[in-house]
Amino acid sequence: MKLIGVGVGPGDIELFTLKAINAIEEAAYIFIPESRGKSIAYDIARPLLEDKYNIIFLDIPMGCGRDLYKTYAERIFRTSEGKTSVFLTLGDPSIYSTFIYIADEIKNLGGDVSTIPGIPSFIAAAALIGEPLLRKGDKMIVCDSIDEIDLKGLDAVVVLKTLDKEKILNLLEEEGFKYFYIKRCTQKDEMVLTDRDDILKDNDYLSMIIAKRS
Amino acid sequence: MKLIGVGVGPGDIELFTLKAINAIEEAAYIFIPESRGKSIAYDIARPLLEDKYNIIFLDIPMGCGRDLYKTYAERIFRTSEGKTSVFLTLGDPSIYSTFIYIADEIKNLGGDVSTIPGIPSFIAAAALIGEPLLRKGDKMIVCDSIDEIDLKGLDAVVVLKTLDKEKILNLLEEEGFKYFYIKRCTQKDEMVLTDRDDILKDNDYLSMIIAKRS
Repeated sequence: MKLIGVGVGPGDIELFTLKAINAIEEAAYIFIPESRGKSIAYDIARPLLEDKYNIIFLDIPMGCGRDLYKTYAERIFRTSEGKTSVFLTLGDPSIYSTFIYIADEIKNLGGDVSTIPGIPSFIAAAALIGEPLLRKGDKMIVCDSIDEIDLKGLDAVVVLKTLDKEKILNLLEEEGFKYFYIKRCTQKDEMVLTDRDDILKDNDYLSMIIAKRS
Repeated sequence: MKLIGVGVGPGDIELFTLKAINAIEEAAYIFIPESRGKSIAYDIARPLLEDKYNIIFLDIPMGCGRDLYKTYAERIFRTSEGKTSVFLTLGDPSIYSTFIYIADEIKNLGGDVSTIPGIPSFIAAAALIGEPLLRKGDKMIVCDSIDEIDLKGLDAVVVLKTLDKEKILNLLEEEGFKYFYIKRCTQKDEMVLTDRDDILKDNDYLSMIIAKRS
C-alpha cells in the first residue's frame, strides 16, 4: 500500500493545491487526524469531502508516543488493503506534522509513503501581515522553541506552536526584533496581535510568532 | 492601483493554489519578470496564460539596484491605471523574491500591495527527497549563504541559490550533517544529487542544499 501525506494548507480552502485536490479525489481512503472529536484538517477540507464515503477519522492525541503511532499505522495499513490512501495534514506534511511519525511506522510495516506539499502556516502568515520573510542575504530560523538559539545573526524568527511566550518576547525585545503573533491564520477566527500584553493574554495552540529585525 | 505578488510555486503546474489561479484570471494586467528573454515563472504558469492578452514581461536582471526596481514599479503603476494587477513570482513571494523590492517601490508611489502564498521550493524539495524538515523540538535555518551561522543547535539547514558549495559542504560535513542538492525541483529537468563531487561539478542558479542531522 501507499500512504500520501497531503498538506491542506493553513485554513483557506483557496490555498489548496490542485495536486492535493486530485490526490483526495483518487484516494482509496481518506484518513483524517482528530483530537477529542475535533479536526481542523477536516474543517479546512470539508468542501472537498462532502460527497465522500471513504473518510476514516483517527483520534490521535497531540504528542502521543510511538506505540500509538504504530497502532494507527497498522490500522491504516490493514484498512488500505494494498491501495493508495491519503492522510490529511494541516499546513505542510514536512513541518511539525503528525504524518511524519505515522510515515515512519508505515515504512516499518513495508508500506510506501510520499507527501504532497501544502502552504505552510508561516508562509500564509507572512502574506497576512504583509512582511517579506527573507530579503537577499537574510537568514531565518523556524522552530517550536527559542531555547539555545543565538538570535544575533538572524533576520527573521518563526516560532510555531508558541509556548512560553513571555520568554520568547523578552529575548526578541532584547535583540531589537519587532514581532507579530498570528493565530489561526486564514481560518475564520484569524487574528494578528502586536501588543505584548495582548499576546501574553492569548492562548491558542494554532498560533505562531513571526519576528523581524526592525 | 493594487499589485498582488502571486506565488506560482516551484514548477509543477499542479502545485498552483486555487487562489493564485483566480487572481491571474481576474487581473487587469499580468506582469512577469524575465531575464535575457527567459522566464521560469512564465514557463510554469503557461497553461494558465494561453488565452491571455494582458501579459507584460519585465526584463529584470537578477540582483539589480533600487533605481531599476523603481523604474519598473513606475511602469507597473502607470500601466495598471488604478486597477488590480498581478506580478508572478517563482515559489513564494515572501522568500528571496524580486517582488519584495518591486513592492517597496509600488508602496512609495502610493499603490497597494499584497501577496498570495505559493509553495516554496524547499518545501517541495523536502517532499521530493522524502525527508521531513522539522520533527517536534527541531530547529531549521533558511538562508542564501552559510556565513556566520552556528550549525550546532540546528537540525535542518536549507541554503537557497547555492553559491560557494565547497565551503557549505565542508561545514556541513564537519558538523555531521547529511545533505541533498536539489536542482529545479518539480521542473522538467529536476535532479537530486547526494555525492559531493557530483554536487561540486554542477552549477545551476535554481538549486538548493537541504541538510539534516544524520
